[in-house]
Amino acid sequence: MFLADVVGTVVSPVQIRALDGRKLLILRPVKPDGTPTAKTRIAVDTVQAGVGDRVLVLDEGNGGRQILGDPKAPVKTLVVGVVDYVESAQGLAYDHRKRGKKP
Amino acid sequence: MFLADVVGTVVSPVQIRALDGRKLLILRPVKPDGTPTAKTRIAVDTVQAGVGDRVLVLDEGNGGRQILGDPKAPVKTLVVGVVDYVESAQGLAYDHRKRGKKP
Amino acid sequence: MFLADVVGTVVSPVQIRALDGRKLLILRPVKPDGTPTAKTRIAVDTVQAGVGDRVLVLDEGNGGRQILGDPKAPVKTLVVGVVDYVESAQGLAYDHRKRGKKP
Amino acid sequence: MFLADVVGTVVSPVQIRALDGRKLLILRPVKPDGTPTAKTRIAVDTVQAGVGDRVLVLDEGNGGRQILGDPKAPVKTLVVGVVDYVESAQGLAYDHRKRGKKP
Amino acid sequence: MFLADVVGTVVSPVQIRALDGRKLLILRPVKPDGTPTAKTRIAVDTVQAGVGDRVLVLDEGNGGRQILGDPKAPVKTLVVGVVDYVESAQGLAYDHRKRGKKP
Repeated sequence: MFLADVVGTVVSPVQIRALDGRKLLILRPVKPDGTPTAKTRIAVDTVQAGVGDRVLVLDEGNGGRQILGDPKAPVKTLVVGVVDYVESAQGLAYDHRKRGKKP
Repeated sequence: MFLADVVGTVVSPVQIRALDGRKLLILRPVKPDGTPTAKTRIAVDTVQAGVGDRVLVLDEGNGGRQILGDPKAPVKTLVVGVVDYVESAQGLAYDHRKRGKKP
Repeated sequence: MFLADVVGTVVSPVQIRALDGRKLLILRPVKPDGTPTAKTRIAVDTVQAGVGDRVLVLDEGNGGRQILGDPKAPVKTLVVGVVDYVESAQGLAYDHRKRGKKP
Repeated sequence: MFLADVVGTVVSPVQIRALDGRKLLILRPVKPDGTPTAKTRIAVDTVQAGVGDRVLVLDEGNGGRQILGDPKAPVKTLVVGVVDYVESAQGLAYDHRKRGKKP
Repeated sequence: MFLADVVGTVVSPVQIRALDGRKLLILRPVKPDGTPTAKTRIAVDTVQAGVGDRVLVLDEGNGGRQILGDPKAPVKTLVVGVVDYVESAQGLAYDHRKRGKKP
């Protein structure tokens, strides 16, 4: 699994049926402190995440079968959590709860 | 999954049977804004994509079994969608619908 | 498998059920001599490891099903061992037993 | 899948039984125009390819089970096609048929 | 599969049961001519390889189930062969048989 920021969405009308009705998010993988670490990639949302959220991304196992409940979904990159906070040896590296609380 | 531009095709007469009759596309992975991000790779087409299309590429799961309907197809890199448009926090990053509409 | 140092933890209240109750560790992959080698990533703990431990990380196979005992856990990056020592052709490259024994 | 040039062979007398009798080829992955793109790797031949051929390489799915016809073959990097020609938007990028026709 | 040199061993007393009694080798992936190509990684030995051997490494398929004979072993990076010699278009790139024969 890895951390990422949601930076956009993709709309693809001509596509395989397993993706119909799924929200496709563009993700930018980040380090615990928010520095981007890799190329953007596309994942299926499972937790109602949106642009601006920091999320926990699963990129392994049999996500399609196990999480989407669809044994035919050939997808394993899934957004599986919205991150609340990240703690490192130096203290809090990210705190979602501070968002929107600026005066 | 990732975004890519279709840049060519491969013809291979001496090959395994599971690939017979499949259209093999050369893909150049791109960022949402179209910048190339990785080495070209080869995928099986499933949505009648062609050279010049921006496509949604699946590179995980059991594509061969699940999408090609062939439990023996040992392939998982598949073109599964032709992208219509891409939205980021900054607005539209790609719009397929503008192609071919130039005066 | 690879070696890593545990550098933090992630808390994500909105997440898929398979992760409920699991401790999520932030790992920094390292070389035998301790030099960082790759981006941090997130894994599920199975051996009560904590921040500061050098650990053995499994990133392959069917970890969720096989180690967590949960056929539905779509996770395969797991901390599967706390390293005691590492031997190379040049001798001991790492010795956990020396930690905490400083006078 | 990806394109590669066959650049050598490996002989390993002490090995697991699933590899006995298999021809092991050293491959150099290449771009459509022949530029090397990645580290060499080793694959099992299935189409009688040899040193100097440009080949189509499968590195996904369940190649061992599906192509070698051996449910116990723990191998998925297989040479599955000898490339005849490659077409890009700029025309022919590679043409196997011209090999050996030089006067 | 890829080629590697065995450069060390790891001892981890606190670990999952599937690894108990397995010899864990630290590998440095190399090119056919012996140049290192990637980060070190850790694999389970299956052919009695030791520090100094050049080995054939399997990193795909279902090694744990298929080679270790343990359907629960969640491991797929395995040392599956000790290399005798490597032939490239330029001749012998590596010859294990010359080791230890220096006068």
